Amino acid sequence: MKRIAVFTSGGDSPGMNACIRAVVRTAIFKGIEVYAIHRGYEGMIDGDIKRMQSHSVSNIVQRGGTKLKSARSQEFRTPEGRKKAYDNLMLHGIEGLVAIGGDGTFTGAKLFYEEFGIPTVGCPGTIDNDLYGTDYTIGFDTAVNTALEAIDKIRDTAAAHDRIFFIEVMGRDAGFIAVESAIGGGAEFVMVPETKTDLDAVVKSLKHLRKSKTSSIIVVAEGDDAGNAQTVMEIVKDKLQDSTKDFKVTTLGHIQRGGSPTARDRVLASRCGMAAVEGLLEGYQFHMAGVINQEVVYTPFADCIGKSKPLIQDHLKLVEILSI
Amino acid sequence: MKRIAVFTSGGDSPGMNACIRAVVRTAIFKGIEVYAIHRGYEGMIDGDIKRMQSHSVSNIVQRGGTKLKSARSQEFRTPEGRKKAYDNLMLHGIEGLVAIGGDGTFTGAKLFYEEFGIPTVGCPGTIDNDLYGTDYTIGFDTAVNTALEAIDKIRDTAAAHDRIFFIEVMGRDAGFIAVESAIGGGAEFVMVPETKTDLDAVVKSLKHLRKSKTSSIIVVAEGDDAGNAQTVMEIVKDKLQDSTKDFKVTTLGHIQRGGSPTARDRVLASRCGMAAVEGLLEGYQFHMAGVINQEVVYTPFADCIGKSKPLIQDHLKLVEILSI
Amino acid sequence: MKRIAVFTSGGDSPGMNACIRAVVRTAIFKGIEVYAIHRGYEGMIDGDIKRMQSHSVSNIVQRGGTKLKSARSQEFRTPEGRKKAYDNLMLHGIEGLVAIGGDGTFTGAKLFYEEFGIPTVGCPGTIDNDLYGTDYTIGFDTAVNTALEAIDKIRDTAAAHDRIFFIEVMGRDAGFIAVESAIGGGAEFVMVPETKTDLDAVVKSLKHLRKSKTSSIIVVAEGDDAGNAQTVMEIVKDKLQDSTKDFKVTTLGHIQRGGSPTARDRVLASRCGMAAVEGLLEGYQFHMAGVINQEVVYTPFADCIGKSKPLIQDHLKLVEILSI
Amino acid sequence: MKRIAVFTSGGDSPGMNACIRAVVRTAIFKGIEVYAIHRGYEGMIDGDIKRMQSHSVSNIVQRGGTKLKSARSQEFRTPEGRKKAYDNLMLHGIEGLVAIGGDGTFTGAKLFYEEFGIPTVGCPGTIDNDLYGTDYTIGFDTAVNTALEAIDKIRDTAAAHDRIFFIEVMGRDAGFIAVESAIGGGAEFVMVPETKTDLDAVVKSLKHLRKSKTSSIIVVAEGDDAGNAQTVMEIVKDKLQDSTKDFKVTTLGHIQRGGSPTARDRVLASRCGMAAVEGLLEGYQFHMAGVINQEVVYTPFADCIGKSKPLIQDHLKLVEILSI
Repeated sequence: MKRIAVFTSGGDSPGMNACIRAVVRTAIFKGIEVYAIHRGYEGMIDGDIKRMQSHSVSNIVQRGGTKLKSARSQEFRTPEGRKKAYDNLMLHGIEGLVAIGGDGTFTGAKLFYEEFGIPTVGCPGTIDNDLYGTDYTIGFDTAVNTALEAIDKIRDTAAAHDRIFFIEVMGRDAGFIAVESAIGGGAEFVMVPETKTDLDAVVKSLKHLRKSKTSSIIVVAEGDDAGNAQTVMEIVKDKLQDSTKDFKVTTLGHIQRGGSPTARDRVLASRCGMAAVEGLLEGYQFHMAGVINQEVVYTPFADCIGKSKPLIQDHLKLVEILSI
Repeated sequence: MKRIAVFTSGGDSPGMNACIRAVVRTAIFKGIEVYAIHRGYEGMIDGDIKRMQSHSVSNIVQRGGTKLKSARSQEFRTPEGRKKAYDNLMLHGIEGLVAIGGDGTFTGAKLFYEEFGIPTVGCPGTIDNDLYGTDYTIGFDTAVNTALEAIDKIRDTAAAHDRIFFIEVMGRDAGFIAVESAIGGGAEFVMVPETKTDLDAVVKSLKHLRKSKTSSIIVVAEGDDAGNAQTVMEIVKDKLQDSTKDFKVTTLGHIQRGGSPTARDRVLASRCGMAAVEGLLEGYQFHMAGVINQEVVYTPFADCIGKSKPLIQDHLKLVEILSI
Repeated sequence: MKRIAVFTSGGDSPGMNACIRAVVRTAIFKGIEVYAIHRGYEGMIDGDIKRMQSHSVSNIVQRGGTKLKSARSQEFRTPEGRKKAYDNLMLHGIEGLVAIGGDGTFTGAKLFYEEFGIPTVGCPGTIDNDLYGTDYTIGFDTAVNTALEAIDKIRDTAAAHDRIFFIEVMGRDAGFIAVESAIGGGAEFVMVPETKTDLDAVVKSLKHLRKSKTSSIIVVAEGDDAGNAQTVMEIVKDKLQDSTKDFKVTTLGHIQRGGSPTARDRVLASRCGMAAVEGLLEGYQFHMAGVINQEVVYTPFADCIGKSKPLIQDHLKLVEILSI
Repeated sequence: MKRIAVFTSGGDSPGMNACIRAVVRTAIFKGIEVYAIHRGYEGMIDGDIKRMQSHSVSNIVQRGGTKLKSARSQEFRTPEGRKKAYDNLMLHGIEGLVAIGGDGTFTGAKLFYEEFGIPTVGCPGTIDNDLYGTDYTIGFDTAVNTALEAIDKIRDTAAAHDRIFFIEVMGRDAGFIAVESAIGGGAEFVMVPETKTDLDAVVKSLKHLRKSKTSSIIVVAEGDDAGNAQTVMEIVKDKLQDSTKDFKVTTLGHIQRGGSPTARDRVLASRCGMAAVEGLLEGYQFHMAGVINQEVVYTPFADCIGKSKPLIQDHLKLVEILSI
């Protein structure tokens, strides 16, 4: 393999730049030419492809977002779109790809490999941590810390006013951000998509806690089965009937996607980026490079997409015990 | 004057603890006994009043929220409530008050002074910066920096995806947070209550900017005349008719009230706290201690409440010029 | 077991408070009485022991340092000291201990168990990450992020001035902080105690890099075999003989021990704290509760102290590759 | 005036990029061509001069350091050097300059104007705040906050161990950073170049404080008359003779120069940058654009360099009172 390309796709996550940097420099270190594709599959179709040098990725390891931009491509979902993309890669002599993204990115990469045989190794770039094949995804640690800093700030004002705060964090299908920010933030409750939320039990506990605590924080994953934070707040408020309390909702939103990546995310991103290039050279063709138990592991895209990754049971137990 | 009390009231703001600390230690330094009233006027009515020592305020200078808690008191609005409060102060021999808060706090203090003659000096504790009689209020600088950090994070993801973000910051009647965070955040537009918002002009500019910029950030004060961020986004989206752009809204909410205070807020809070005690000793009775042009200034509550504080004209000009 | 006590000992680390909180609340949750010993073994000897309630550990999960204070005790190294400590524990009816600390703490706990048979479960509280029996120690992640933020700041000024910076981070015997902050910080070199440092090779590389880079960052663990940052700088400066460059040294020092713990440290600390109490109840008597491969693992103190924990080989490779 | 150039010179400071951005965009907004000179006077001599567009300064408002790099030029101190610089400016048709820097920068600019008549308006870019003609300098607020965050972290570990910490902050001739970080950090003492340091008084106070406080923080400006932090620590340790205390020194160093600028610095930098361009157009030729009492003020370089700027007296009083 003499020439590869790297791109980011889907929702951006902090650490993507560190990962791009690692891919580019590892490739150059190993004597391979490396190109960047801008705006993910969209740029592949448009031929937005440029040669990268070592200095092209200087001073980006600490930056949020993605220097290569990201996009969701409708056209790549069509056979015509993918053919165009393939032709552009051929035009530049690209023999292998590194795809940084999540579920959707790998679904596209898998299909593309099956149709055109372009070897692709993926790096797990998503804040949600919901990818099988890696202990953590790139961007997750930063997102949790961002959520946690927000919770810390909100606790200041919650405590000053005896309030019950419902804080909505990202996580449409997965509660990882919610659970870790709830433990770290000392939240009284956490509501996640993976478990059935029992609002009556929450109300009962709140009544009980009321004697010992004047303010409470409840972390709600956006995809919880009981509804989003606003919905949950209204139900709880209605059931609790406590006029001495203020009920407030804060939806953290897109701040969770940005920001300078944490150490953990930079190290993970760098390691996955290096492993992706090494993986291509070793012959992996439709795999994601993740880190499990401190070791690099290559997992077929089919498993990354198809298998689910459970929450850590101890973590759910912790929220319950520590809120007493 | 031999014995004074300090309390925080209204919405909490970062730096209130630094201010409490300064009041307590300045009083002790000057040989005066100092008490803390918990939960503002509510605690005054309930007699929730405790003696403070120097170590009572150790290790709080860096903390958000307020150690003394805050509340909005309905009962203090009644003559009966105020009479109870007065009786409690007399019971403890309190001869003067330091009130840390905003508009509502000082309105109460003014009335209380007129009825019972208890001298009160106020400290400007509110994140909104909308108090006449001080260049900045305690908590404003922290709130702006919190908003700015959020905008920085959002720009990462906005730039990665070619998005138009509408970010709502606090400010029901005043645009100070909006304007300074817009300048600092490199926002394309800012919408504030003090000026008439012309959405057609914004749409026209966005069309123009579109050629040079792929993403834009628009900061909206919650009290803007055109509506909140969600409303404004919907109108702009409808008028702009650009299907290549994503339109997103983020409402920063209560994170702006919390967090460890910035240096500027700690220094301002400390200075106002010291000045409040000195002011009581010098005979001020219904004044706020603020800092104007680097000097301590005592302004009658009537002016603090009644006079308006304009935005800095240069700041509005900056947003316009710097967004090109 | 009906009554246990918890203490922190040795160098403090961020997350110790989160760990104390978890120990206290898990104990109470399980119906056990829990006491706090202040100032580690010193306080055990002095009888500085107090009953804890759930609210005793409110609002500390986010705080650096340790609420229970820490100390290094000379007296505990004597049989007389340990006897006094034992007598005090008996006086309070303490049947089991949770010891939060590092090497020295566990050495003491092991001896104490052997002499008096008091069951003790440890939690790995040290920023250095040099404890066998856990993937990470409590405080390590925060320390790395603190070092990284410092490196990010220094890179700004290094880049502005074409400078070579030698940044000394903590790590007397272990290079974990150095390696992860070097990867994350995009450093050109890292020098750690675990590997022989070849300054001639560094000088040669710097000469080579000079063509492509105008500024460089070199991370030096305080215990590197080539000397501390100041020493290393002087040798490199002397060998390099490049008058166009400024050579600067920054020693990060004690800021690495403080600060609000990161999400990772709070979650790890909470989990170890819970596991320590559960471990005591399950009959562990001279073990540390750590987390390996996402699972709680109990390791005998003898192994924690005696076995060494190697750096991750991929990490050293990353620094080399990514600095090109 | 049709064409101007901007450069940064001397020690870099956070906010310089925001200032460059404001200069470039204000110029373009007003229909003036704008060039950037790299590496200060050094680049002027080398002819390192490039045309700037609006997008040249995109996405830099939040970045520390200076995109244009900075340098200290020996050659510019010679008449030959300055002649070369002048010739290069003529070659590009530059009719006016914006110089972002401190004392040394303005000394050069003044001389250059006197010799060649090139109008120059300066912006106060230095972390030290020691420039007459502006309430604050660009970078000062960020530096103070960086120092403060470090002090907050150190207090965590100081409190955990009953230690006396001597923290050295920047400030060779001025104590602004020291004083504001000492107030904000709740330090027990501050030592600054502007006032005579009496170590015997410090020792006496420490003995007195010992009864009420177990740990102390002493902030030392690097240019204090009693010596740097290490020297002062050794003297105090020797005089105090208290073996129950640990004495520690931390020198914050270059982290104080870097980092993303605070809101205050970004706003000030933006305003000064705009004012510098407007000043050139209004005919100012050897002036610095600063902000005093919230208004833009143009001060002759001679005064900026020659007149001294005193510390705020209340601030020194605050450190004394608040440390009780």
